[in-house]
Amino acid sequence: MILKVPSLDRLVNELSKLPGIGPKTAQRLAYHILKAPENYVEALRGALQAVKTQVHECSRCFSFTEEEELCFYCTDAHRQDDFICVVEDPGDIARIEGSGVFKGRYHVLQGAISPLDGITPQDLRIAPLIDRVKKGLRGEGPQIREVIFALDADLEGDTTVLYIAKILRELGVRTTRIAYGVPIGGDIDYIDYRTLGRALENRVQL
Amino acid sequence: MILKVPSLDRLVNELSKLPGIGPKTAQRLAYHILKAPENYVEALRGALQAVKTQVHECSRCFSFTEEEELCFYCTDAHRQDDFICVVEDPGDIARIEGSGVFKGRYHVLQGAISPLDGITPQDLRIAPLIDRVKKGLRGEGPQIREVIFALDADLEGDTTVLYIAKILRELGVRTTRIAYGVPIGGDIDYIDYRTLGRALENRVQL
Repeated sequence: MILKVPSLDRLVNELSKLPGIGPKTAQRLAYHILKAPENYVEALRGALQAVKTQVHECSRCFSFTEEEELCFYCTDAHRQDDFICVVEDPGDIARIEGSGVFKGRYHVLQGAISPLDGITPQDLRIAPLIDRVKKGLRGEGPQIREVIFALDADLEGDTTVLYIAKILRELGVRTTRIAYGVPIGGDIDYIDYRTLGRALENRVQL
Repeated sequence: MILKVPSLDRLVNELSKLPGIGPKTAQRLAYHILKAPENYVEALRGALQAVKTQVHECSRCFSFTEEEELCFYCTDAHRQDDFICVVEDPGDIARIEGSGVFKGRYHVLQGAISPLDGITPQDLRIAPLIDRVKKGLRGEGPQIREVIFALDADLEGDTTVLYIAKILRELGVRTTRIAYGVPIGGDIDYIDYRTLGRALENRVQL
C-alpha cells in the first residue's frame, strides 16, 4: 500500500512477480501503463490471454507451437532430419537460429538435471529424445546421424549432457556439444580463467 | 515472427513497448508468463484493467487517487496544510514519503518545462498550484507558508523551479528547493564534479 492507490499497488505487486522485475521497476512500469493509451493496455491484456490459451507444446520437440500439433521447426520441409540440436528452453532455439548455422531439428529438454533443485532426468523431456533416436534406428522415423548439445555451460548443463550422451552413445549415435571458448570480440583481459582454460584445452590447429 | 509462434511474438512485441524492456527481456518475460500458472496471468490482466478503469487524477494535487475525488495525501487529516511539496510525477511522492521527513501536502506538475520536447508551462499543472496559493491568500483555502520544490536536479527541473518560484515570490510565499550535495554514503572519489561543486557552494556551518 506504499502508493496509497490500491489498484496501482495491486499492479505493482503483480508485475514484481515477473523475473528480473524488482519493486522499483514494477512501480515505473505501473505508472507508464497508467499513462499509456487505453488501446495499449487492451493490446497487452489481449496478448497475455492469447499466449495462455493458444500456445502449447510441440508434441515432438517440446518447443512451443500454435494451432498445429507440431511446431514450425518440426514441420519445415527445408530442414535436415538427421541432426537434432538439444536445448534447455524454447527460447534457446531463437538464439541458435540467430546464428544461421544450424539447419536441423530441435529438441527442448525443458530444463537441466539439478539434484539441488530436485530436478531429475525424469522431470525433463529426455525419454522422448531417446525415443526419437530409437524410432530412427527402427526405421519408424527419420534416422538421426548426430545429436548436438547446446545446453548452458554450467554444472547442470554439463551433468545433463554427460547423462544423455552416455545413453545415446550406447545406441551408436554420434553426440557433440557446442564449443566452449573465448567469445568473438572478447578481450583476453576480461575473460574469466575457467573459460580461458577451456579455450586453451580446445585450441584449434592453424 | 522470430519465435515462429504468433501469440508469443505478439506478447513480446507488446512487452517491448514498456520503458526499459528491450526485446531480450520481453522474450524472457513472455516465456515466463507462458509457463506461469493460469491464475497469475488472470491476476495480471485484472490488475491492468483495474489500474486503467479505477485510478484517476486527484482534482487538487494531480497525484493519483481511486474512488475518492481527492487523494490520500490531500485528505489525510494528520498532515500540515501550510506546506506544499512540488514534484514532477506522482511516483516521486512515494520516494519523498520514504524519507519520512515531510508531513505537508503535495502538488504534482506532471512533468517539467522542456522547450526541446515542446513542454511549456501551459502543459504542466502550474496554474492550479498558483491557484492553491492564491486561494490561501484570499482565505478561501488553507494558507500556504512554504512551497518546497523537489524536482529532478537537471536543466528541465531547474528551469521549472525558477519559473514557478518567480511567480510565487511575487505573491509573497516562501519558496525553497531540496538541497543538492553528496549522497549519504557517497564516496568523494566517485561523485561527479558538478555535484561536488554544488556541495561545496552549499556547505553547512558545523
